[in-house]
Amino acid sequence: MREYRGYIFDMDGVLYRGDTLIPGAVETLERLRRRGRRLVFVSNNSTRARDDYAERISELGLPIAEEEIIPATYATARYLAERHAQERIFVVGALGLVKELLRAGLRLVAEPERAEVLVTGSDPAINYQKLSQATSVLLAGKPWVTTNLDRLHPTEDRVIPGTGAVVGALQYITGRQPDVVVGKPSRLIMEQALEALGVPREECLMVGDIIESDVLAGKNAGIDTALVLTGVAKPEDVERSEVKPDYVLKSIADLEG
Amino acid sequence: MREYRGYIFDMDGVLYRGDTLIPGAVETLERLRRRGRRLVFVSNNSTRARDDYAERISELGLPIAEEEIIPATYATARYLAERHAQERIFVVGALGLVKELLRAGLRLVAEPERAEVLVTGSDPAINYQKLSQATSVLLAGKPWVTTNLDRLHPTEDRVIPGTGAVVGALQYITGRQPDVVVGKPSRLIMEQALEALGVPREECLMVGDIIESDVLAGKNAGIDTALVLTGVAKPEDVERSEVKPDYVLKSIADLEG
Repeated sequence: MREYRGYIFDMDGVLYRGDTLIPGAVETLERLRRRGRRLVFVSNNSTRARDDYAERISELGLPIAEEEIIPATYATARYLAERHAQERIFVVGALGLVKELLRAGLRLVAEPERAEVLVTGSDPAINYQKLSQATSVLLAGKPWVTTNLDRLHPTEDRVIPGTGAVVGALQYITGRQPDVVVGKPSRLIMEQALEALGVPREECLMVGDIIESDVLAGKNAGIDTALVLTGVAKPEDVERSEVKPDYVLKSIADLEG
Repeated sequence: MREYRGYIFDMDGVLYRGDTLIPGAVETLERLRRRGRRLVFVSNNSTRARDDYAERISELGLPIAEEEIIPATYATARYLAERHAQERIFVVGALGLVKELLRAGLRLVAEPERAEVLVTGSDPAINYQKLSQATSVLLAGKPWVTTNLDRLHPTEDRVIPGTGAVVGALQYITGRQPDVVVGKPSRLIMEQALEALGVPREECLMVGDIIESDVLAGKNAGIDTALVLTGVAKPEDVERSEVKPDYVLKSIADLEG
């Protein structure tokens, strides 16, 4: 394995699964820090604000600071603050997303007919009225920004729908597709991670457990990639996939450097 | 226009729009009846039971009996009673659909893990939990029957999501497609209409206002078709479409026979 100065880690399936740490995760992060490596952590979580997410991570005992975490909620708020700072935004999403958008000083509106942008994320309180309101924003031709496109989230005992429940419904109803995807595999969240690292991309490694999300995000951003097998991807997935990681590791414990 | 003995009418956009009758609708139906024509009325409505639908139709002043109406709710219940009579059914849909399924003697269950079939329709009370439960039925590989696939319903002041809100979400999340579609443009609802008419299909005419739904349903069932321009379809849609109706009429008032 080449030597890298910056590391971008996916979290769920790499550092922990559910409430259980992956053996060696804490030690690996500590070793990389001792050697002066820069670390940043990206997640497609679209329901938790950055501080809420950091709280959970610290409860798990992982040595990660809030400023090192970039969940899709936070990344979406930053993207919107750069591109749609003055526009009225209609959101279909969880409280964590709303919190990040408000913190970024964005203008949220409750009336779809006043909206200039639609933002979607996973929404545990999705209902017919919200879908109907979002539909009217899309049929009025307004831009559509989504935190991510994840279809399913594995939980400890079963899989549950992700942002795809909202995106899929709206896509089918309106015939439109999101104009902007912020989360992985989009390069948008990766560029934010690279900026936080402050290390040239050629000297960075992306470490994740999902080929179509993490590895593809790395490729999209021109970064080397390592796939760990402690989460979603199985060895046979690597063989089958056209997207090939630079390294395949049994777990984060095998990460050199 | 050829002479027909049986007529299958779509309702919304053909006989009325919202709460307003199309001029000439009542007179045309009465004239056809006087001449001994057989009539039946099909609708992709997936939220109203047959009797509730008949009540609304009679309030509008249309001379149509309950037994002549085949909404997608009723048609789906009949289909299931023929094919899945003994199986446990998990429903995501409105009260009207539930009523028809229970009337048909079908076995509805509240627990997705016990379900042997998933049935979907438009659901004004759709929420994350229902989508999540339906997802688990689909991921368990059970058959998926849907009342219809309609993306949008025009109402008097705006368009609102149809069954597509549910179907689109589940399709995107699971990567599956419904195994059986009962409503138009499926031939399944048309076969029920033909059976109710008791007239050979060569002597029947399908009359509707949506090319991709009504005209296509007629073609799928091998029935001649007339498109009226009092609803969704515009003259330019007819030119653009590859699906060509046998007749294009300004309204039902121009129907001969």
